[in-house]
Amino acid sequence: MEYRIETDTMGEVKVPTDKYWGAQTERSRNNFKIGNAASMPLEIIKGFAYLKKAAAYANYDLGVLSIEKRDAIATVCDEILADKLNDQFPLVIWQTGSGTQSNMNLNEVIANRAQVLAGFKIGEGEPVLKANDDVNKSQSSNDTYPTGMHIAAYKAVVEITIPGVEQLRDTLAKKATEFMNVVKIGRTHLMDATPLTLGQELSGYVAQLNYGIKAVKNTLSHLSEIALGGTAVGTGLNTPAGYDVLVAKYIAEFTGHPFITAENKFEALAAHDAIVETHGALKQLAVSLNKIANDIRMLASGPRSGIGEILIPENEPGSSIMPGKVNPTQCEALTMVAAQVMGNDVAITIGGTQGHYELNVFKPLMAANFLQSARLLGDACVSFDEHCAKGIEPNYDRIKELVDNSLMLVTALNTKIGYYKAAEIAQTAHKNNSTLKETAISLGYVTSEEFDEWVKPEEMVGSLK
Amino acid sequence: MEYRIETDTMGEVKVPTDKYWGAQTERSRNNFKIGNAASMPLEIIKGFAYLKKAAAYANYDLGVLSIEKRDAIATVCDEILADKLNDQFPLVIWQTGSGTQSNMNLNEVIANRAQVLAGFKIGEGEPVLKANDDVNKSQSSNDTYPTGMHIAAYKAVVEITIPGVEQLRDTLAKKATEFMNVVKIGRTHLMDATPLTLGQELSGYVAQLNYGIKAVKNTLSHLSEIALGGTAVGTGLNTPAGYDVLVAKYIAEFTGHPFITAENKFEALAAHDAIVETHGALKQLAVSLNKIANDIRMLASGPRSGIGEILIPENEPGSSIMPGKVNPTQCEALTMVAAQVMGNDVAITIGGTQGHYELNVFKPLMAANFLQSARLLGDACVSFDEHCAKGIEPNYDRIKELVDNSLMLVTALNTKIGYYKAAEIAQTAHKNNSTLKETAISLGYVTSEEFDEWVKPEEMVGSLK
Amino acid sequence: MEYRIETDTMGEVKVPTDKYWGAQTERSRNNFKIGNAASMPLEIIKGFAYLKKAAAYANYDLGVLSIEKRDAIATVCDEILADKLNDQFPLVIWQTGSGTQSNMNLNEVIANRAQVLAGFKIGEGEPVLKANDDVNKSQSSNDTYPTGMHIAAYKAVVEITIPGVEQLRDTLAKKATEFMNVVKIGRTHLMDATPLTLGQELSGYVAQLNYGIKAVKNTLSHLSEIALGGTAVGTGLNTPAGYDVLVAKYIAEFTGHPFITAENKFEALAAHDAIVETHGALKQLAVSLNKIANDIRMLASGPRSGIGEILIPENEPGSSIMPGKVNPTQCEALTMVAAQVMGNDVAITIGGTQGHYELNVFKPLMAANFLQSARLLGDACVSFDEHCAKGIEPNYDRIKELVDNSLMLVTALNTKIGYYKAAEIAQTAHKNNSTLKETAISLGYVTSEEFDEWVKPEEMVGSLK
Amino acid sequence: MEYRIETDTMGEVKVPTDKYWGAQTERSRNNFKIGNAASMPLEIIKGFAYLKKAAAYANYDLGVLSIEKRDAIATVCDEILADKLNDQFPLVIWQTGSGTQSNMNLNEVIANRAQVLAGFKIGEGEPVLKANDDVNKSQSSNDTYPTGMHIAAYKAVVEITIPGVEQLRDTLAKKATEFMNVVKIGRTHLMDATPLTLGQELSGYVAQLNYGIKAVKNTLSHLSEIALGGTAVGTGLNTPAGYDVLVAKYIAEFTGHPFITAENKFEALAAHDAIVETHGALKQLAVSLNKIANDIRMLASGPRSGIGEILIPENEPGSSIMPGKVNPTQCEALTMVAAQVMGNDVAITIGGTQGHYELNVFKPLMAANFLQSARLLGDACVSFDEHCAKGIEPNYDRIKELVDNSLMLVTALNTKIGYYKAAEIAQTAHKNNSTLKETAISLGYVTSEEFDEWVKPEEMVGSLK
Repeated sequence: MEYRIETDTMGEVKVPTDKYWGAQTERSRNNFKIGNAASMPLEIIKGFAYLKKAAAYANYDLGVLSIEKRDAIATVCDEILADKLNDQFPLVIWQTGSGTQSNMNLNEVIANRAQVLAGFKIGEGEPVLKANDDVNKSQSSNDTYPTGMHIAAYKAVVEITIPGVEQLRDTLAKKATEFMNVVKIGRTHLMDATPLTLGQELSGYVAQLNYGIKAVKNTLSHLSEIALGGTAVGTGLNTPAGYDVLVAKYIAEFTGHPFITAENKFEALAAHDAIVETHGALKQLAVSLNKIANDIRMLASGPRSGIGEILIPENEPGSSIMPGKVNPTQCEALTMVAAQVMGNDVAITIGGTQGHYELNVFKPLMAANFLQSARLLGDACVSFDEHCAKGIEPNYDRIKELVDNSLMLVTALNTKIGYYKAAEIAQTAHKNNSTLKETAISLGYVTSEEFDEWVKPEEMVGSLK
Repeated sequence: MEYRIETDTMGEVKVPTDKYWGAQTERSRNNFKIGNAASMPLEIIKGFAYLKKAAAYANYDLGVLSIEKRDAIATVCDEILADKLNDQFPLVIWQTGSGTQSNMNLNEVIANRAQVLAGFKIGEGEPVLKANDDVNKSQSSNDTYPTGMHIAAYKAVVEITIPGVEQLRDTLAKKATEFMNVVKIGRTHLMDATPLTLGQELSGYVAQLNYGIKAVKNTLSHLSEIALGGTAVGTGLNTPAGYDVLVAKYIAEFTGHPFITAENKFEALAAHDAIVETHGALKQLAVSLNKIANDIRMLASGPRSGIGEILIPENEPGSSIMPGKVNPTQCEALTMVAAQVMGNDVAITIGGTQGHYELNVFKPLMAANFLQSARLLGDACVSFDEHCAKGIEPNYDRIKELVDNSLMLVTALNTKIGYYKAAEIAQTAHKNNSTLKETAISLGYVTSEEFDEWVKPEEMVGSLK
Repeated sequence: MEYRIETDTMGEVKVPTDKYWGAQTERSRNNFKIGNAASMPLEIIKGFAYLKKAAAYANYDLGVLSIEKRDAIATVCDEILADKLNDQFPLVIWQTGSGTQSNMNLNEVIANRAQVLAGFKIGEGEPVLKANDDVNKSQSSNDTYPTGMHIAAYKAVVEITIPGVEQLRDTLAKKATEFMNVVKIGRTHLMDATPLTLGQELSGYVAQLNYGIKAVKNTLSHLSEIALGGTAVGTGLNTPAGYDVLVAKYIAEFTGHPFITAENKFEALAAHDAIVETHGALKQLAVSLNKIANDIRMLASGPRSGIGEILIPENEPGSSIMPGKVNPTQCEALTMVAAQVMGNDVAITIGGTQGHYELNVFKPLMAANFLQSARLLGDACVSFDEHCAKGIEPNYDRIKELVDNSLMLVTALNTKIGYYKAAEIAQTAHKNNSTLKETAISLGYVTSEEFDEWVKPEEMVGSLK
Repeated sequence: MEYRIETDTMGEVKVPTDKYWGAQTERSRNNFKIGNAASMPLEIIKGFAYLKKAAAYANYDLGVLSIEKRDAIATVCDEILADKLNDQFPLVIWQTGSGTQSNMNLNEVIANRAQVLAGFKIGEGEPVLKANDDVNKSQSSNDTYPTGMHIAAYKAVVEITIPGVEQLRDTLAKKATEFMNVVKIGRTHLMDATPLTLGQELSGYVAQLNYGIKAVKNTLSHLSEIALGGTAVGTGLNTPAGYDVLVAKYIAEFTGHPFITAENKFEALAAHDAIVETHGALKQLAVSLNKIANDIRMLASGPRSGIGEILIPENEPGSSIMPGKVNPTQCEALTMVAAQVMGNDVAITIGGTQGHYELNVFKPLMAANFLQSARLLGDACVSFDEHCAKGIEPNYDRIKELVDNSLMLVTALNTKIGYYKAAEIAQTAHKNNSTLKETAISLGYVTSEEFDEWVKPEEMVGSLK
């Protein structure tokens, strides 16, 4: 491999000739060989690209950067956003907790790439852009990293998570309406209970997802606040007046999302409660989705020795040894995702507690876990929707067989003959393995006509809307 | 001990003569000897008392209960709410996951106490109230327990947690204003950084708590929805028309909080995402409080070998062996509470995922953990406020000494001489253990006058509001 | 209420006349009104009683305490261990994180009680014992609290948790043997799979518990190391030579458990990894028990619309509204306990990470969560054993019906006709709702005789031991 | 892109021509577009390669596979282990929870690659190997995936985690010895306490890591048990007699690690408590490392406004805005890793609880989280060791200054003048900002000579070994 020499305030470093990055990126690459290379999420890199361009625009508007430098910066940022420089960001999550080295990675790549675009070799000629003084102007890692993190997180939630959940929610809502009159047995404690309809059962899932979406949306205003303009410790040192508001306006314009400057920059650097807050809502979605997916696989279990009340699509051979086996694989993927999100929540929670004084230095950890959760939830909902939920159908025969035999239909008699006599009927029928009706009559508590009038599963399910 | 015989649908049970509870409570007491006795939180018992009374009123209004029965029920509920029957609820958290036995505990105590209030012995005479048919009328454990849980949770959050956090927030806000001009060194990565004021630092904590309070409040509308009216599986079987809305109105009236009937009763029985949601916000508060308490103990550390920038009240002798030692004990209590809340969040999360079909049977677990978190957070904030935050004072001499010596004041020179020369000054001063000013001048980068004009800590802290 | 005046190094405090505690306990009571009163576990108080007595003995043996003082201390410690002074320990978990105030609570109660036992009023006459100089001699809170914590934790695990788990394990092992030949359908992914026996299924649970018990036992040697002798920071300041080994010997003698002095006292004060370690193993047991309890309730589900392969005891009426309903309540209690232990593990983990320098100040939090887990696991296993596991019986008819109809018996044909043809048989039988045998023959892949010879559920279950 | 047609029991699928995988891999690729492609860890793929080869050898030895087929399988497995086919495994973690599709991915790649090695095109000629009948012979996904998982997990722990922790432990032990006589102030509650030596402080870290390593090793025997031979549900259906023991012997031989066949195959399929167990120990290491890294950054904090008692290597410029700043970046990477491991522990715990009947279907989730933790811990320890721990040096001047001024040296007077008088000295000196010695003399409690004789920091640190 060929190298060139790059220099920073600590001295010289050898850098691969074919890479745009500079001394500090290379130091980090060598000093943090932890886990897979280049694990810093690309969404974070792009969040930086948005903010570096916005900072250049704001700096120009406020008279502290030339239009040539502004445009040089913007051009490279656009390349980054267009996925043209993806191999220029080799750093890992497990670096300095402020993400300083990823900020410098951006600063160095932008400066060196601009030099090349201007027709020079890297290091040759008068620098078009200086990494610290120009590309990083009016910025610190301490406000850029959380800004990039909020941009990436907000985008992931709004562009991936929420649409994915909504897609699944819509399918379940459609199925709920479609099966609203399919009367089936209810189950509590996993035991036979009074009837409800399949549509009602599904409507509970829809409600869960609606609450979850609302919970996530409730957190977005906090997440839309960005730290940029706080610089090193939140005071905004070395920024021109009005910069924080203006740079947020540019970020909002470039991303198409309603970002605003954080009301309190000290909070925005030293704590990442906005990440904790939104991820808390993602965790709630994980809880809901786990319940839904688990129910569906239990309802679809069988084909001959399970519950078997619904049918779900058969997507793959289910077993390498058991011929003809089909499994609820989408439910499994979704519940594994849910478990991951719940684990990520603890990692984020711990990271969130550990800010010290003016800075939280668990930023890359928090960002990486958040982005994984947001993407997995969105993707898994879409996958579950397309390969499972859309194909849910009632197994009508099985549903009817089970509800008709249920002992818990006896509950309808409570208001006629009282809880105690009703209990005696159910217990006797259970012991004798007889039907409710014949038992009720033989015990002398109701006539045949009364039983038929009072015990109607379809009238035990309340209003259907 | 003396016993009487009580009967339920399974047969006879011996119950202590001096207790109002009946057969099912006694069965539970015998069948679940797990952990401390009577661990089911009293707040849940009282939540039940509110709803049993409300159900009696709604049942009377809708023509399914006599006025005499209504009033008999209400009278005992009022006694429970007035703490007169606290020793009548011996059951534990670790019982059936629907809390059925605690519901029956209420039903039995209300029925038997009413009998006594009517001038009979328990079991003597015509029953004034039947536990299942009257006290539990239009109810199931499956909708009463979650209703009692929401009542207890909502009250705890609104009456204990939020006021406690607000009290601390107000003190910190007052201190932030008071110390807004006290310029001190900033610290990032625990290392010396550019200056800010003590007021600014504290304002970050205020912002954290404000976001946290807002996050909690965002969740309250979900928590205000109650399951009552869903009965066994959410269909509302055995309830009169209009009951669910009416009973919620009565609960709102009796508690003084804006409870409404849940939009979807299937969700309200089978999932407890509202508990997950609100506790997620409580966890966020725990994260914030951990950061704040940890900062304060670090800032107050010493007295001679720590940071020592602030002084906090000396409340107790700190050591049984080291004479004269004083410790940041309120910070310790608060951070332990924070850790507990974070642990509780995982217990609640796991419980929340495990609903099956029409019912989640982790209700008592979720309720107990929630109520512990809500109370601990509120209490600990009040304790921290009164015994620590209210007494925070700057250690002016120490603050001034540290900021004046800081090498990071060099950052003010970035925009004058560039990042690289500024770095050289700082590095040289560090190596030579000299002052920034003498180093800057000796390196020839600035004059004495320039240094004095450009490097002013009090002008490096931005706007003070 | 009547008060007397007590004094400590900070001044005077009013203390209730009828209590033995002194100034520092009272300060703590007033300064930490967080959650329920007296929440510091009694097991910890007793752990202290053991160590205070042991310290008195060691101090006497080493010539730094008179025999009169030794015996005065020991007498009160014995009273504490005999539950005679339980109302003298009013402090809460949420106090100083070193538990200093609980150490002083012990010191003060022992000193004042000794004074009364000597025939004086509290505060009257020459002190028989001085709280700091005599009762606390050769001790610090920093080494006593972790010692008391290890004593309490070790005892709870060895006396409650392990015996409880073993009791359940023994029952399951007995049932596994008893039902070793009951061939039933297996289920993977909740879907029908190849057969196994009920005894084999139960043997998996036995194996889980055996591994769990072994995992817990693996951690006990770390937990048996006690900090006493390290005093303030681990150096053993103010202890006579040989004290640490001797005091551990006395603790071992008094408790009957093999406690030894910690090899490294700095670790024993600054970290509580032993607590983290053992609780990690308790969490593993929680994971295992959750699986077992969940399986059992699924296998027992029904009575008519579930899996219904086993019968479990019917212990209580299951529903306040559904007459005759019976639920797997012991499974629910056990899974709630499991969720609590998993939450506690996170609280303990977080507490464990946060030691600073020479001391971890999350001690009471860690102790309280640990002791709750240890007791709940032990109690819940006993309860589950007595009220559920002991009564497990196969539902033979149902088991036979399900295994005979299973399509997955086709797997036996893999080695005869290959996976692909076997799959075709299963898929065709599933589509046509026909039996495996008739389908296999009609497809021409096997003869009737071959099928009967090759497809025998009882020969598909491997060796039965 | 070019495609060929592959077929499985469900029909035809188009597969990229240049890939060896077949129909089932392609179905999975299309059905599970969740998160990044090819996220199934390569360590798992290699675990499969070991076991497929071992199974081929055992099958041959037991007479159910020809030597030609054995060798064809082994050849491709060796290619996989040599990283020659890394691009043939495109599947994700978030697939079926049994990992069936990854098992089939191996089966298909091995069969098709063997066909090509035999000189055919894929699909051309008589198949050298059939994916299900030959490559998967005597296997099921249900026993292969957990076997691959145990192989990968065991190797990661033994080859990466433990050596990494030991490397760091050795450095800290060397430093502990080197600095065993450097007397410094101790700190408890972050407050000044009695002295100890820097070596003693470091020895506590060494002890933590030793306990952690021991805890991990305690779990290895469970992890060394492999499921292979249990096939579909644990009964070993379709395996020749003696297969399970033999195949484990081959795996042990090929990997060089002491794998043995699981004692109870039902446990080995339905539960993954061995993964829970070992990861619990990894979590303990994370707890320890968090404490160590946090202490070191606090001790090294400054350079002028922190604690500053130790110096650590300056590896990178620390700030993009603050010139000359250097940060404890290795501490930050390590504490972020610790937080990740703690989060992963919860994901694994949840996955571990959710086995149903004969199978746990959270296998890929558990494997992926485990492997990430094992690698991150090992890598981060090496990084921390090389770039931080090895360079730790005492800041002698600062250490001496702080210990000499400490008020807590007064503790040495306890045994001379009693705790109360000693407290008065410390409190008075603190109030008057005077030295202990002048205060002690002026209060008349000691003479100058006594003070000098009794208060010697170097004699307050106990035995130094």
